[in-house]
Amino acid sequence: PSSPMAEETDEMSAKGVKNIFDKDVKVIEMQSESGAAGAMHGSLSAGSLTTTYTASQGLLLMVPNLYKISGELLPGVFHVAARAIATHALSIFGDHSDVYACRQTGVAILSANNAQEIIHLGAVAHLSAIKGSIPFIHFFDGYRTSHEIQKVKLLDYNDLKTLVDYDALSRFKKFSLSPETPCLKGSAQNPDIYFQSREVSNKFYMELPNIVQRYMDKINALANTNYKIFNYYGAQDADRIIVAMGSVCGTIEEVVDHLNSQGQRVGLLKVRLFRPFSIKHLYNSFPKTVKSMAVLDRTKEAGSLGEPLYLDCAAAALELGLNLKIVGGRYGLAAKDVTPEQILAVYKNITQSEPKNHFTIGIEDYVTKLSLPIIERVDLTARDAVSCKIWGLGSDGTVGANKNSIKIIGDNTDLYVQAYFSYDSKKSGGITQSHLRFGSTSIRSAYLVEKDDFVACHNQSYIYKYDIVEYLKPGGTFLLNCSFTEEELENKLTNDMKMYIAKNYIKLYTIDASKITKEICLGNRTNTALQAAFFKLTNIIDIDLAITYMKKAILDTYHKKGEQILNMNYKAVDEGVKGLKYITIPKSWADLVSNESSKPIIDEPEYITNILRPINANRGDKLPVSAFIGMEDGRIPAGTAAYEKRAIAMQIPKWIPENCIQCNQCAYVCPHATIRSFLAT
Amino acid sequence: PSSPMAEETDEMSAKGVKNIFDKDVKVIEMQSESGAAGAMHGSLSAGSLTTTYTASQGLLLMVPNLYKISGELLPGVFHVAARAIATHALSIFGDHSDVYACRQTGVAILSANNAQEIIHLGAVAHLSAIKGSIPFIHFFDGYRTSHEIQKVKLLDYNDLKTLVDYDALSRFKKFSLSPETPCLKGSAQNPDIYFQSREVSNKFYMELPNIVQRYMDKINALANTNYKIFNYYGAQDADRIIVAMGSVCGTIEEVVDHLNSQGQRVGLLKVRLFRPFSIKHLYNSFPKTVKSMAVLDRTKEAGSLGEPLYLDCAAAALELGLNLKIVGGRYGLAAKDVTPEQILAVYKNITQSEPKNHFTIGIEDYVTKLSLPIIERVDLTARDAVSCKIWGLGSDGTVGANKNSIKIIGDNTDLYVQAYFSYDSKKSGGITQSHLRFGSTSIRSAYLVEKDDFVACHNQSYIYKYDIVEYLKPGGTFLLNCSFTEEELENKLTNDMKMYIAKNYIKLYTIDASKITKEICLGNRTNTALQAAFFKLTNIIDIDLAITYMKKAILDTYHKKGEQILNMNYKAVDEGVKGLKYITIPKSWADLVSNESSKPIIDEPEYITNILRPINANRGDKLPVSAFIGMEDGRIPAGTAAYEKRAIAMQIPKWIPENCIQCNQCAYVCPHATIRSFLAT
Repeated sequence: PSSPMAEETDEMSAKGVKNIFDKDVKVIEMQSESGAAGAMHGSLSAGSLTTTYTASQGLLLMVPNLYKISGELLPGVFHVAARAIATHALSIFGDHSDVYACRQTGVAILSANNAQEIIHLGAVAHLSAIKGSIPFIHFFDGYRTSHEIQKVKLLDYNDLKTLVDYDALSRFKKFSLSPETPCLKGSAQNPDIYFQSREVSNKFYMELPNIVQRYMDKINALANTNYKIFNYYGAQDADRIIVAMGSVCGTIEEVVDHLNSQGQRVGLLKVRLFRPFSIKHLYNSFPKTVKSMAVLDRTKEAGSLGEPLYLDCAAAALELGLNLKIVGGRYGLAAKDVTPEQILAVYKNITQSEPKNHFTIGIEDYVTKLSLPIIERVDLTARDAVSCKIWGLGSDGTVGANKNSIKIIGDNTDLYVQAYFSYDSKKSGGITQSHLRFGSTSIRSAYLVEKDDFVACHNQSYIYKYDIVEYLKPGGTFLLNCSFTEEELENKLTNDMKMYIAKNYIKLYTIDASKITKEICLGNRTNTALQAAFFKLTNIIDIDLAITYMKKAILDTYHKKGEQILNMNYKAVDEGVKGLKYITIPKSWADLVSNESSKPIIDEPEYITNILRPINANRGDKLPVSAFIGMEDGRIPAGTAAYEKRAIAMQIPKWIPENCIQCNQCAYVCPHATIRSFLAT
Repeated sequence: PSSPMAEETDEMSAKGVKNIFDKDVKVIEMQSESGAAGAMHGSLSAGSLTTTYTASQGLLLMVPNLYKISGELLPGVFHVAARAIATHALSIFGDHSDVYACRQTGVAILSANNAQEIIHLGAVAHLSAIKGSIPFIHFFDGYRTSHEIQKVKLLDYNDLKTLVDYDALSRFKKFSLSPETPCLKGSAQNPDIYFQSREVSNKFYMELPNIVQRYMDKINALANTNYKIFNYYGAQDADRIIVAMGSVCGTIEEVVDHLNSQGQRVGLLKVRLFRPFSIKHLYNSFPKTVKSMAVLDRTKEAGSLGEPLYLDCAAAALELGLNLKIVGGRYGLAAKDVTPEQILAVYKNITQSEPKNHFTIGIEDYVTKLSLPIIERVDLTARDAVSCKIWGLGSDGTVGANKNSIKIIGDNTDLYVQAYFSYDSKKSGGITQSHLRFGSTSIRSAYLVEKDDFVACHNQSYIYKYDIVEYLKPGGTFLLNCSFTEEELENKLTNDMKMYIAKNYIKLYTIDASKITKEICLGNRTNTALQAAFFKLTNIIDIDLAITYMKKAILDTYHKKGEQILNMNYKAVDEGVKGLKYITIPKSWADLVSNESSKPIIDEPEYITNILRPINANRGDKLPVSAFIGMEDGRIPAGTAAYEKRAIAMQIPKWIPENCIQCNQCAYVCPHATIRSFLAT
């Protein structure tokens, strides 16, 4: 998840964009993260301000150099889109395991919780590194934050310029390795002096929290924010608080508001500066009325007494003599979605006189019984917010079109916007879910959209595989892109879908985007037509205005391709709006009987029935821990792909014997080797 | 420090020594530790029991694979000679920074405190890994323990064989990757199931401490030991305890005995199994009378609230509701020697009502004032123990001869022996100090010999550089290998040395080993003659017996080299004994005045005066933290070698103009480029 940062920087550099010092930025791609960290050490040693971007195993490869860079007090900054580390299985998704694996290296660690904070705290990291002579890891949640689209305010280079400590900067330059001021660095020390030389840098770490706070104050003045080493949010007389870092904080804030509005007294302590861990700043950061505290860690350190932030908080409480009940819990491993319900369960847990410690949320664990039960379901999105979910097929253009729509709405209205795109690991040809939110207030919900005002399904095969309508609010709108006529729908839709639509007064629309685009010779580029349909049905912007904006975007993108291409795309917009068909729901649908259970029972391995099929039906999240007994080492049986018929093709080839010249190319190119050729008489 | 383990294994394998399963052991050397860890992962995946040896940065390179190997529940064992990690400077010496950097990976971590425990707990690690399906790091202090020579009892292969859980072993083999039982491992998991799959292995970690304890019990039965997950040593009604891991535990035990014999009530809690950290086992491991606890960590994690073991103990105390005062401290970084005095200071600290937390011992820190003051000096070596220190020049044969002597004494007497060799990083041509102890009781002192019964100086140039006699007990014996006659001594010895010798009734002997060996044509191989002198003067073994043993050792080593070589070495033994000269100390020596301060003050850089000279005089240990202010990043000035005149050569070349053919080879080979040739008319 860190790659786009480096790519964007590379692009800016190539375009000649200057840094705040009005200098060119030199970008170098190394062979591996070991090399990048080594190059960073060298570059910093030579007196160049240097930064890099990484995550997960990549960050692990940098660990040896992190010790060196911090030991030599070099002001590098590592921007980390925090990601899980491969254990029993690889995961490309976000948690804090990688950052926590660096906590012993002497690097300062600063946490940003959303896109806006990355801009502010990224600056704090660079400024503090220069002034404090300590390298920083500035991290935020991989994908959840690194790939979320949000409306943000940028900092002005001219403002940032004034914040740099130029004395510290020239000290850094002066003490760099240079033939003009020769010195020796990276020596070998014997037992006689190593320990003393190691302790003499203590004061840099003692001073750093103050430096960070002063820079936070300066950013606060510029951006009208309120960053602190530890930020408290919630009731000033709270009896219970959660301590956490990362995107989950947005969700916890929603829950804090919800509970406090019900007369409870809860709060959230956001840890910004995780290293150096400043117990002095911690002490006055939350109300003295707090009786119990749950510390959430987005990692699992098997065999430890507890996870890192919990251990720090427990030791701090002991040192400060706080009379607190403290428990720790794990959440959101490998980007497991963290919903308000899970957070409610945490607050509930610490109301108990004997709260569960070392708990988990977001999963059900009947094996070691560490999971907290979900007690209530809540919808905490703002009343006027609009939520949408659009199901697409990897590389069918859905995600791109949604990014476009978000940009149009963000640029042309006062609305706050949020877009998060979840992919499965099949990437192109896999499933994509675009989660969009719009509202008049800032959007903090760092979890997937669960109940939508609008759901679109861009691939008709999905209606047999996923329970797409379950994500719709009663009265919501459902757009199905399909080739079915109104009459065909009766047979094509499943009974369960029809029942849900009828009982929940869903407004059903269909569109045949493939037909539309084929007619205007746009091939299978259905995204523009579907985007137009989205604007028409959601009505977030007046449709006429929306059409103007969409056409403007088309002009910006395709103006070099000539009049004809432009007109084809303009036409896709118009036809997308016109092609919508409102379906009147037959009353009879409400009285149907589910035919889910009538599916024939197939003789297949347990793994297929119990694990593969739920995963493929987008229900993997509901599998309990116990489902994986016997697979603790990450093993899965071989040959499971045979049970995965995806049936996602819009067109299928047909063999026409009279046309066949028996060239056998079909057998040669068939990706699944199901076409076999035989030599026959 | 881990290399000898791999080398020894390689040699055993090459010689065809079988493992306990009566199988050949295949040893492969990879290009780097990353490769070794990857190969280990692969080999274990294929169902081979696999082990490796590493330390420091090497272990860091294995971290990504540690996550994989533990995640996949593979029973590999990593034997780690724990070593410092390079920060502001490199250090090849021992502390626990490297092992602590793996505490989050899911690997079990077991600590052995001395050579004997390595044998026992190494077995426990392998046996528990197989039965528990969790990889182990089995660690001990690099150099201090890995390179200490001690008399140990080996375990019998036949006994070990019976301890293996063969069911677990065949399960491991059966579940390995093999074409006969195909399965898929190392898959990629999405957010839907990763978290659940990660939690399902909890029970392996929960069960592991019991497995380890059961194997400890079996070893206890075999070896008459008392290993526990946490081992308590000391008063059953202790009010203060230290918690620690590693070689320091031997030293702490000495101090515990000392204090308790004075009527105090103190104890030591030795952490054997650091991961999984079993709070259940901790709870009942030490007396309920304990009021305060000092946790010692042999690492520094800059920016953390406290070091790892301290954080664990603090959180554990909080969870168990123990009413304890807990403080943490750092010690012995990069093998800084840890003496009984330092441990006394720790016990003293926790008698205070407000003990210092996050303290250091073994250094003086006037900068951040974290160091504990040394209050008293003690000598805790057993009354009948003999301590010796022999100063040599790297590769002059001193260390080899001492290893030989230790072996002779260990093999032929009931005495316990200990030998530890400290080198400086100049290696060959540098200084070596051999610290030897002999006694009728087991030797636990894991620190350098400070006050000796016998000191030998094998290089006469040392008497001007080091305060060699300060290490002698009053009445002790001093052997000086030198070319000086008795008369010359008057002028050659420094006033300070002469005063110390006279005032402390030191028995002074000289020997001219170079002359002896030259006469019997042994070149500069002075070690045999000096070894004979050692046996004669220490009288640990009757000298006639010792001569027999030495000659037997010579026969074993050189029997293939022919009669002549044997006879030359036999003669070196006899002449070494005969060549000793007892020097009668003139009474006047006691009345001399120190001429230390009369040394001319040279105009030289502060770094040379304040740091380089003390280090070169073997007084670097006495430099306080404040000496390194301004060098916090590890920098040192360039050009310091110019101030280092070592004058260690026994012979120096002399230019004889009438013999010179002006070939200029001298300029070509001069290692310091001080011979320059000029073209002249």
